[in-house]
Amino acid sequence: MRPFDIHRPDQGLSTQIQQKIDNLNKPKGSLGRLEDLAMQVCLVQQTLTPSLAHPCHLLLGGDHGIEREGVSLSPREVTWQQMINFTRGGGGVNMFCRQHGFRLSIVDVGVDHDLSSVPGIIDRKIRRGTRNFRFESAMTQEEMDRAIDTGAALVDDCLADGCKVVCVGEMGIANTSPSSLWMHLLCQIPLGNCVGAGSGIDSEGIRHKYDVLSQARKRFFEEHPSPTTEDIVREFGGYEMVAAIGAMLRAAERQTLILVDGFIMTACALAACRLHPEAQDYMIFCHCGDESGHRAMLDAMGATPLLTLGLRLGEGTGALCAFPLVDSAVRMINEMNNFSHANITKYF
Amino acid sequence: MRPFDIHRPDQGLSTQIQQKIDNLNKPKGSLGRLEDLAMQVCLVQQTLTPSLAHPCHLLLGGDHGIEREGVSLSPREVTWQQMINFTRGGGGVNMFCRQHGFRLSIVDVGVDHDLSSVPGIIDRKIRRGTRNFRFESAMTQEEMDRAIDTGAALVDDCLADGCKVVCVGEMGIANTSPSSLWMHLLCQIPLGNCVGAGSGIDSEGIRHKYDVLSQARKRFFEEHPSPTTEDIVREFGGYEMVAAIGAMLRAAERQTLILVDGFIMTACALAACRLHPEAQDYMIFCHCGDESGHRAMLDAMGATPLLTLGLRLGEGTGALCAFPLVDSAVRMINEMNNFSHANITKYF
Repeated sequence: MRPFDIHRPDQGLSTQIQQKIDNLNKPKGSLGRLEDLAMQVCLVQQTLTPSLAHPCHLLLGGDHGIEREGVSLSPREVTWQQMINFTRGGGGVNMFCRQHGFRLSIVDVGVDHDLSSVPGIIDRKIRRGTRNFRFESAMTQEEMDRAIDTGAALVDDCLADGCKVVCVGEMGIANTSPSSLWMHLLCQIPLGNCVGAGSGIDSEGIRHKYDVLSQARKRFFEEHPSPTTEDIVREFGGYEMVAAIGAMLRAAERQTLILVDGFIMTACALAACRLHPEAQDYMIFCHCGDESGHRAMLDAMGATPLLTLGLRLGEGTGALCAFPLVDSAVRMINEMNNFSHANITKYF
Repeated sequence: MRPFDIHRPDQGLSTQIQQKIDNLNKPKGSLGRLEDLAMQVCLVQQTLTPSLAHPCHLLLGGDHGIEREGVSLSPREVTWQQMINFTRGGGGVNMFCRQHGFRLSIVDVGVDHDLSSVPGIIDRKIRRGTRNFRFESAMTQEEMDRAIDTGAALVDDCLADGCKVVCVGEMGIANTSPSSLWMHLLCQIPLGNCVGAGSGIDSEGIRHKYDVLSQARKRFFEEHPSPTTEDIVREFGGYEMVAAIGAMLRAAERQTLILVDGFIMTACALAACRLHPEAQDYMIFCHCGDESGHRAMLDAMGATPLLTLGLRLGEGTGALCAFPLVDSAVRMINEMNNFSHANITKYF
């Protein structure tokens, strides 16, 4: 995997930023999380007047060999059908991109269908779906490296357009399964606490999913008794998930804000931060969903999500829904009057 | 107090609405709270294609006699200073109204300062501040009725402009004190659990506030051994708070969505619903703040807030910050493709 040169944002400005926030005409701390967000955005951008100009959303699609094991309620053809649906503007991700002014890039990183002639889909296909990780590694080292580079290059494209905030979403039937294994192996949380209903399987389905993932884990540890993070990523990941890691790491390397979506994108953020812990300073955790274990994974990362709305659609919808709050924070520090200017008795 | 003719929304459409939601191209229920919101908005508006056109924010200002007892960190002149600041666009409420396209009406219902010549402030002053309810009723019956009518008339003005959603906020130094008493008396929650830090008093200040409110309660029960909701509202309320009740009740009467803000506006919503329980179906509870007891008051109403961001600025800022989520819900039901149209294998 290529190296990323990621550093924590310089904290030198933090006193000045806090002074600016505290001098806005409101009781100190009274805008709560928005004040924390403003601090984070200012530090990431190293400025007292931050910007969220040209927000971009990367919708990364890929299929999963593990889908063959019946771990998902939805069949794999839903992945390509939805990818086409997104090009027509009818998906959840489309609505929320329109609502919040995000440029949407729909990218095929590994969908098991020929989408090369579909207008509006960016073709970065690495393979038609990963291998079935119950029996073998989901991808090769070379494929993993390509997926990382693909995500990174997509972020470079966004930044070339002046983008100040990158959001990442996914479409990939069965991708809660690799996410559960990443969470389990990277957080040392018991596998049973990491496996949930995905798009809607019942308790018997969850038991079956748990059994399949247990078998995959057994095989993995036989082949990798002391696995590295890269091993864990390669063995179970989807191309769209590894591309998301590459996108997040490149965004952090280029000191750009990252909006992190729900369970699957949090698993990608987790893997990214295990590879480069400094990347987390660039991430805003947007939504905690119902998927079993999501809260525990956020807790393990010390992350507090902005929203808890019970969304489990994926596509980055939870992250997009939280964008206006980040925007509110930026407007607060840029537009709100301060005490001296407003001629108001300063109260604390 | 004038009567309001408030009815629960007709539930006859709910099956059709649910069918429309379930046929959108997403796993059933996967947009969580947004689906519940869409149902509520559709029922309130009695339509399958709801609208949030011309949103209006009423910023109601008033002062409180109880401020003389030192229950607030901020001095009362902050009320009028902030009212003027709002006319210049520099307050929290201004930013968020701009961000979300709300028409902002800044209304003096009872500020203790002559604001009649300030451009941009609507003069509906009933009196320069309420009386000190430690010693006497905060307002007369006639003043209460006027405040109710004032709020109702403001909503009528909004609706005349095609407004589909009304948001109410307040500016009134010391108004957490009457809110705490309303909560205590209307929910039968111990007073100690209803008293908090307001704009930032310390634990000694909270103890003092508790003592003052206890004395007010003692006087009140001596004069009203079996108080009605109207008694409770009149004895402790601020003009801006009673006007908020009038606004909420009139909006419900006219089958219009109401965005409910933080602790003080939740106390007003509580009082409105004690007067007319059917009004609650029109209310969206937007934010749960840090103020002691806010969560308990929401629980007592069976209300689940959309956001928990630790805001305690008032002005309606918490409600405004939640507006994009309501908008997302409306976009979902209006814009999202359905399975048959999208040619996607329906998954449940």
